[in-house]
Amino acid sequence: MSLFRPELDRIAGYVPGEQPRDAGWTKLNTNENPYPPSPRVIEAITEAAQGKLNLYPDPLGTAFRQAAGKVFDVDPDWILPGNGSDEVLTILTRSVAGTTDQIAFPYPSYILYETLADLQGARHQRLLLEPDWSWNFDKIMPLVAQSKLVFVPNPNSPSGNRWTWDDLISITPPKGMLVLDEAYGDFADHPHRGELLNSTIGHQIVITRTLSKSYSLAGIRFGFALAHPTIIAGMRKMKDSYNCDALSLAAGTAAILDQDWMIANTAKIRATRERLTASLIELGFHVVPSQTNFVWATHPTGAHKAQYDALRMRKILVRYMAFPDVPWAPDQKLDGLRITIGTDAEIDSLLTAFKEIV
Amino acid sequence: MSLFRPELDRIAGYVPGEQPRDAGWTKLNTNENPYPPSPRVIEAITEAAQGKLNLYPDPLGTAFRQAAGKVFDVDPDWILPGNGSDEVLTILTRSVAGTTDQIAFPYPSYILYETLADLQGARHQRLLLEPDWSWNFDKIMPLVAQSKLVFVPNPNSPSGNRWTWDDLISITPPKGMLVLDEAYGDFADHPHRGELLNSTIGHQIVITRTLSKSYSLAGIRFGFALAHPTIIAGMRKMKDSYNCDALSLAAGTAAILDQDWMIANTAKIRATRERLTASLIELGFHVVPSQTNFVWATHPTGAHKAQYDALRMRKILVRYMAFPDVPWAPDQKLDGLRITIGTDAEIDSLLTAFKEIV
Repeated sequence: MSLFRPELDRIAGYVPGEQPRDAGWTKLNTNENPYPPSPRVIEAITEAAQGKLNLYPDPLGTAFRQAAGKVFDVDPDWILPGNGSDEVLTILTRSVAGTTDQIAFPYPSYILYETLADLQGARHQRLLLEPDWSWNFDKIMPLVAQSKLVFVPNPNSPSGNRWTWDDLISITPPKGMLVLDEAYGDFADHPHRGELLNSTIGHQIVITRTLSKSYSLAGIRFGFALAHPTIIAGMRKMKDSYNCDALSLAAGTAAILDQDWMIANTAKIRATRERLTASLIELGFHVVPSQTNFVWATHPTGAHKAQYDALRMRKILVRYMAFPDVPWAPDQKLDGLRITIGTDAEIDSLLTAFKEIV
Repeated sequence: MSLFRPELDRIAGYVPGEQPRDAGWTKLNTNENPYPPSPRVIEAITEAAQGKLNLYPDPLGTAFRQAAGKVFDVDPDWILPGNGSDEVLTILTRSVAGTTDQIAFPYPSYILYETLADLQGARHQRLLLEPDWSWNFDKIMPLVAQSKLVFVPNPNSPSGNRWTWDDLISITPPKGMLVLDEAYGDFADHPHRGELLNSTIGHQIVITRTLSKSYSLAGIRFGFALAHPTIIAGMRKMKDSYNCDALSLAAGTAAILDQDWMIANTAKIRATRERLTASLIELGFHVVPSQTNFVWATHPTGAHKAQYDALRMRKILVRYMAFPDVPWAPDQKLDGLRITIGTDAEIDSLLTAFKEIV
């Protein structure tokens, strides 16, 4: 006799990604930022640690919302801080989708959205992307129309491309929300700034953001939603009372106030990305022009798994990804290497290894 | 047109408890510990802040689970760390209760369980307690039998009493889980140590723990579940991948390893609790013998709201609580004052004020 919901029993257990902690690895597999966070963040945490940790934190994260409001030029009521954008996406799923409702998302894309739908016991629908990562509107619009929630990472993972604002307006469900997961929005050539919130469908848009990538803070689990205050108010009902702790609130506030640091950090990543892209193309790879802190590389030989293994032998970790049920891919399986942009030295090591392997 | 689930629209918005941040308040309203946490916790946070915050934290919190396993004499597989016991309770609700399932809990008691059921869209059932805070087994057993999940804070809030292990075994749902919320378990005269996990119903028991109270760490949002590995494995599927951040994991691990500090802290609270109880009785209050870091005080005049207001005028905050639909209470409404055990100086201020007021 299982004591759990049948939905949960049907789902496979979570397998954490490879996170070797021993020294000597070049870690280009989980899209972490290779640079340390702003020194102001470390100061803020150290100061908060000396504060009144015996008291509950501010349940609404007021200081952070004020700081982020200034950066995005909105009132603090447009912002909901969360324990990583993971928590923000979970809150949205629970707030919007009942067991008879449909959640849709592009495919191949970030696999989490399907897991969130399964955990909620909601129906889900993949929106198949074209070989060039564009939308097939004729095919997907009927599916979008039936959805309460459409999750779209923009830019996308694993491909690294971004879609136009017009594309995204088109795939907004008429009676639902479009959630733009902008985890990588700061790495775009023209960094995203909440543009669609002021569009005609602005009241149906939720933008999620994380400090894990562009602010080098994967360790503190901090993200936020940016949306119309009526949406934020609904999400606030669903969240745990004190969902963000005093330390991550202090860290997040210091991080978002140091925009100069973030902009300099992402500029470095972008420069390395262009160099890596050019070098991979020289080595015979096909590389999708990336707007993120990673690139999606495929090779005419299709030997991606062997390449991954050969890199791993050299203590270089990239992400080998395989997506089944892709009609336009060989054997209906799309696979390739997703490579995080590391430091210039790390990318040099990777390229040296690739020259031996490919 | 609401974009949310009808269940969410029906629920009132969350109103955060009173958390004045200006100086001069004596804060005895939210069961925070008046003493600072172990100095080792502050050292651990400061050290973690210098670490690799650009990398994701350990998704399973291995170091914490090893430390807590030693304290509770179980394997690490029996432990699931969470973002406060709030998150652990949310994970349990989502993992066990579908929309047709029933969640039960004592009443009057901690109001959160009802909110969790409502947010999940599950049915809920109050198990009415007797005037002496004991169970009426004849009345509640049919309700327990139909439940997938029974939440019981042990010791209880607002009353501060604890129930016997035999009582708790009796109210375990035959086809469900009994969740013992032991937020205050360390303040009992014989602190709880996971006793029921080894009982005949051990495989149906989940114990939740928080570091907010006995470890003086409400600010870091850290709690954990203690249960049979098959239950922990199911809960792990439901949680966000990286639900605890690197700083709170470091803080939580340091805290749980410093048992001497926690034991000395709770001993101080217990001593002050006995003194406060005796003094309130002298002032004419009825006080439930407390096994927690607060007391539930009622006065023959029934003037609890006026007493709360008069204390508030003097910048002393206690919790005025009123529970409707209690058949055995005057006008079916049970009200009273829930007073957190502060420092001896804070309790002296409270008693001085009470002498003027009562």
